[in-house]
Amino acid sequence: MTYCVGLKLNAGLVLLSDTRTNAGLDNISSYRKMFFFSEPGERIIAVMTAGSLSVTQTTLARLQEAIESPEADESNSILLAPTMLRVADIIGNTLALTRAEITHRSRDLRQSQASASLIVSGQRKDGDMRMFLIYPEGNHIEATDDTPYLQIGEHKYGKPILDRVVTPATGLEDAKKAVLLSMDSTLRSNLSVGMPLDLAVIEKDALQVTEQRRILEADPQFTQMSQAWSNALRESFVNVKI
Amino acid sequence: MTYCVGLKLNAGLVLLSDTRTNAGLDNISSYRKMFFFSEPGERIIAVMTAGSLSVTQTTLARLQEAIESPEADESNSILLAPTMLRVADIIGNTLALTRAEITHRSRDLRQSQASASLIVSGQRKDGDMRMFLIYPEGNHIEATDDTPYLQIGEHKYGKPILDRVVTPATGLEDAKKAVLLSMDSTLRSNLSVGMPLDLAVIEKDALQVTEQRRILEADPQFTQMSQAWSNALRESFVNVKI
Repeated sequence: MTYCVGLKLNAGLVLLSDTRTNAGLDNISSYRKMFFFSEPGERIIAVMTAGSLSVTQTTLARLQEAIESPEADESNSILLAPTMLRVADIIGNTLALTRAEITHRSRDLRQSQASASLIVSGQRKDGDMRMFLIYPEGNHIEATDDTPYLQIGEHKYGKPILDRVVTPATGLEDAKKAVLLSMDSTLRSNLSVGMPLDLAVIEKDALQVTEQRRILEADPQFTQMSQAWSNALRESFVNVKI
Repeated sequence: MTYCVGLKLNAGLVLLSDTRTNAGLDNISSYRKMFFFSEPGERIIAVMTAGSLSVTQTTLARLQEAIESPEADESNSILLAPTMLRVADIIGNTLALTRAEITHRSRDLRQSQASASLIVSGQRKDGDMRMFLIYPEGNHIEATDDTPYLQIGEHKYGKPILDRVVTPATGLEDAKKAVLLSMDSTLRSNLSVGMPLDLAVIEKDALQVTEQRRILEADPQFTQMSQAWSNALRESFVNVKI
């Protein structure tokens, strides 16, 4: 399983992903699920992945191939596409095509086994920041001011905290705290979501990753925050009256 | 959808269920999902239901019929069964049989559409309090000191708070608060779980329902608790440092 969450705020994009991949409970590995495509000062695109590793790796490899191809143009390279919407379309088409090919080649795979979803976000020069959730079928939805966050994978445990504290006006420091606490709830409840974590911030109009951090298993700062949050929740519980 | 949660504590059983039933988003009704079978002073059995209303209503009707039948005996009446384990077996068998009959009769129904699960809890005179989660197939698991709560239906949103505050030693007042806050998180995140709520407490060795309350939509006490919890969470969020 996986948990990835992205916030699209007035101040920038805040992204967090776990790294656990499993093929059954007895075959657990660690794989990065957050990827960047960039031309610093021109455009930055971040992709987070959930679902079949075979599908997401192939999808990302193809996006990279298309960028490096001599035939790269506006219609197939996400670094040349004129808008973020077009970037989302290219990624959605590549994902859907990859899934179709894999299930066609391996007929024993059910559609649901070769499923994957992505969060694509970024900004191009002179454009707005945008964030899309791309479904396994290739279509997408976009984060808005009403719902300034998107989640893929095991999203339920970590949703209540986001609903309570995140608005488009949330500052970047609070936003990092919100996604880390959202992940903390998920880690506690679902063993198949696991450390290390990848955290990234892309400030508005920076057109590059402005902060990137890998949080390891025993990270003292994360552990302390997790503990402080537990204590605060228990204290709140004691103080609330019924 | 549905959310039901039961706690098995040293001091007693605490049960909470919602009442929303829907056949599609445009066909929403309110149905009780908490039922009692009792012989005061001798035994008390509580059943909470999730899943297909057609399956759960028929299952409960059959349990009642078996109790009232002239052939009622230890093997088929949950009011005569010698142990709570045997009660869980009878209810599990009745559920599995009901499902099998309904899917046999209505061949267009997929197994998954005629699915239901139950939380069965209670105590008989001279026996221990016990609580079982009965799966659609009729088998069951039991609440233990390690995991003193069971949930059916939309269980994920409300699990983090239970994991953090509930132990077998939790008192009944705190337990009521815990299940109500667990429900509060679920109500906020899933529209298909809805008020009114049914709350019940069965104190240890009382062998009857010791407290029972229906909480309506605008219940001032529940609204106030929900608001206080929201405020406390926001305050905790501000105070935790990353």
